[in-house]
Amino acid sequence: MRIATHIGVSLDGFLAEADGTPTWDSLPKFDPSTHGYETFMQDVDAIVMGRTCFDQGFEDGWMDGWPWPGKPVLVVTSRPLQSDVPDSVQAARDPAEAVQKLHELGIERDVQLLGGQQAVKAFLDAGLLDRLGIVVLPLVLGRGIPLLPIEPVDFSTERWHARQASDDEPQKPPMMQLEGQETYADGSVRLAYAPTR
Amino acid sequence: MRIATHIGVSLDGFLAEADGTPTWDSLPKFDPSTHGYETFMQDVDAIVMGRTCFDQGFEDGWMDGWPWPGKPVLVVTSRPLQSDVPDSVQAARDPAEAVQKLHELGIERDVQLLGGQQAVKAFLDAGLLDRLGIVVLPLVLGRGIPLLPIEPVDFSTERWHARQASDDEPQKPPMMQLEGQETYADGSVRLAYAPTR
Repeated sequence: MRIATHIGVSLDGFLAEADGTPTWDSLPKFDPSTHGYETFMQDVDAIVMGRTCFDQGFEDGWMDGWPWPGKPVLVVTSRPLQSDVPDSVQAARDPAEAVQKLHELGIERDVQLLGGQQAVKAFLDAGLLDRLGIVVLPLVLGRGIPLLPIEPVDFSTERWHARQASDDEPQKPPMMQLEGQETYADGSVRLAYAPTR
Repeated sequence: MRIATHIGVSLDGFLAEADGTPTWDSLPKFDPSTHGYETFMQDVDAIVMGRTCFDQGFEDGWMDGWPWPGKPVLVVTSRPLQSDVPDSVQAARDPAEAVQKLHELGIERDVQLLGGQQAVKAFLDAGLLDRLGIVVLPLVLGRGIPLLPIEPVDFSTERWHARQASDDEPQKPPMMQLEGQETYADGSVRLAYAPTR
């Protein structure tokens, strides 16, 4: 089983506009056939997502046309689910329990991890994200919801001088491994990385 | 003449760590031969940068080994330059004046625009950036200096509902054109985009 994302990200790192609209929707042309979504979903047998994402979709009309008929959906949440969710939807209290339940369901192929950023971060930090797949979308939003929780800082001469004066060898972050890439007609580029465990 | 960047950016969008250390330096192996820098520089006949970047380098030892012998350097700044800068360094008050001076110097090939984010944004906004070249580096910093000035926001149910209730057709940001790409041994990927004018 492999937990994998397929998330469109702007050049300045946003997976959604400030109002929550996925960055995909900022493309002039986007549908499931254009940016690897269909190919990605061919290997997907279950879905896992955070509660924010679930509530956003659930309140926005998934019930009018459930997107994943026949596929188990795991929602990572600390609160009870709505009473009218389909039988295929289960709650899990954290990424580890979600993965355990997916194993119990007999899932062997891919599981799509839907963003937001909190869910992606939670699986990444727990060492339970197997593939960070992003599609770099060639546009700049300026403001929005980042791929991962981040803290942007401005350049500071004081911090720079402190760094130069320090003898500490900085700790280098782990590198991910590139497992796949694909370029689409509009110049978007899919990059699939395996996080270091 | 073409104003172009070649900037290493982490998967979460940072060109430098919080202390100002370029994200390049977080790679286990990085030198001018490994990530397209040498190739990029073969076409570069002049350099342009913002004042923050210039002061950072100038105070950090460029004078001990000037990196661009024989190449003009333009610094976009509103303040007079240090009195001991080399003769090849000129000040310009904004990107337009920098480009004008580069033309007057007879530059015909590429001009490297060195980050920080303020300089990249200024040239992009002025329509004077010809190529946004980034190298996606497969690591996550969490905190640092972003490629461009950004405003990250959290998902808000209120904003999402307001968006759903609105009849306004959202304005789509312009797409950039993919002009080149290259994959390196460590899984870093160079993407070169031409901004829309």
